[in-house]
Amino acid sequence: MSHPFDDAVRLAWQGGHAFAGHTHPAWANMVGPYGGITAAVAVQALMQHPECLGEPLALTINYPVALSTGPFELRAVPVRTNRSTQHWTLELLQQSQGQAQVMMTATAVTALRRDTWRANDLPMPAVQPPEEAAPIVLFDTVEWVRRYDMRLVQGAIPEVLDDRGEDSLTQLWLRDQPARPLDLPALAAMADAFYPRVWLRRARLVPAGTVSLTIYFHAGSQELAEQGSQYLLGQARAQDFRHGFFDQTAQLWSRSGLLLATAHQIVYYKE
Amino acid sequence: MSHPFDDAVRLAWQGGHAFAGHTHPAWANMVGPYGGITAAVAVQALMQHPECLGEPLALTINYPVALSTGPFELRAVPVRTNRSTQHWTLELLQQSQGQAQVMMTATAVTALRRDTWRANDLPMPAVQPPEEAAPIVLFDTVEWVRRYDMRLVQGAIPEVLDDRGEDSLTQLWLRDQPARPLDLPALAAMADAFYPRVWLRRARLVPAGTVSLTIYFHAGSQELAEQGSQYLLGQARAQDFRHGFFDQTAQLWSRSGLLLATAHQIVYYKE
Repeated sequence: MSHPFDDAVRLAWQGGHAFAGHTHPAWANMVGPYGGITAAVAVQALMQHPECLGEPLALTINYPVALSTGPFELRAVPVRTNRSTQHWTLELLQQSQGQAQVMMTATAVTALRRDTWRANDLPMPAVQPPEEAAPIVLFDTVEWVRRYDMRLVQGAIPEVLDDRGEDSLTQLWLRDQPARPLDLPALAAMADAFYPRVWLRRARLVPAGTVSLTIYFHAGSQELAEQGSQYLLGQARAQDFRHGFFDQTAQLWSRSGLLLATAHQIVYYKE
Repeated sequence: MSHPFDDAVRLAWQGGHAFAGHTHPAWANMVGPYGGITAAVAVQALMQHPECLGEPLALTINYPVALSTGPFELRAVPVRTNRSTQHWTLELLQQSQGQAQVMMTATAVTALRRDTWRANDLPMPAVQPPEEAAPIVLFDTVEWVRRYDMRLVQGAIPEVLDDRGEDSLTQLWLRDQPARPLDLPALAAMADAFYPRVWLRRARLVPAGTVSLTIYFHAGSQELAEQGSQYLLGQARAQDFRHGFFDQTAQLWSRSGLLLATAHQIVYYKE
């Protein structure tokens, strides 16, 4: 039996720049699929494209509308190839009433990673190990949260919804459930695994949805393979809530403290 | 005489989704124009497009190659329009040997801003006022830095280049020079006004260039107009340097402490 993550990101190359895929019920969100799995599908397409130079370095994915359940076509076009970087545009199309509708747009950069001087300016916070953190199910109304084994450090969805939240920081350990060796598509999916910060900061469950998500991959496939299926530490916090939109930044560290990915997203919220 | 910023972002709508523009020598960087002015041009195109819904909310701009000095065509296509958000793809083309070359790709979201619940989770740092901060010219080898009146709080380019930098934080006050009322294109340009963090963190001026830049606009035109031409406080710091790329996050606050924009970029560096 294959892993539900591999089932969800499976793409059939159609020749040229086109890939065929299908939404997967194991990754359903409130409306349409979890945004993180769509980001993973985009990364998968890049890595599977026969012309891909290097590996994903940066991805910005925009969500104009929730995907419909069913098949989709993903187009990933290398628009400019340099010596060590390659620039891509992507779009995801679904048929509706005989017309192809754009359901997602994205740009990406793939790159050859080289050995260079290195430094980290955002050390992993000192928190309790995953074995001592409480297992949580973020909320029980959606399917995708069951695809992760999450251990909460701080910042659960508030139990008392009284408009009196005080901060927007969540820290949690997470890994695929069932366990699966880490790779770039899985890391992309995990970069979106934080519920909308407005629920925490405000202590009120208002409708909210990601509009645009940017992920930078600081690690390549080899470094990720070395993580195996260990827990990652994820952290997310908001910067500003105003005019119906807020942004949240996120980081994912390996258990040994290596910063694997950083992300930034802007999210719609109501009222 | 018109302002050099207005000269640089001037676009002639060609009908459909096409705009004609021209690089401007006042905004030259080491090779090609300053990345921030290209981001400003993209914002200008969105705002000038007759089909634009609302105002820019999010912009991701990718820089595959330095622009050539001369004319360019900018294409800004609204690919999906919702009730309160609109999703765009953009590209900048220049002619070379009779062929149109893609010199920039971008995606953007424009949106109607509404009055909602609001909160800030990233207060402006307490720093000395601009009148007490030292005027600086970041470096004297490029033209664009002269387009800003900058007052340094901390984090100048190190004078001693000994590979012994310790942190990556720069804070500075900035405004257009000569003064100009703040608007969304100008705010986009300022979001890139921080020199590469690797120079500071490493204390070594290695070759570096932005690969991809994402800006979220937390304020609309009206809030920006209320700022007039006052100084903004800008802050940038890196998160991780590895494999020839690092990311830097940035924030811009109004003098009164309103978070106007947040940004995130990934930057190539050598060695």
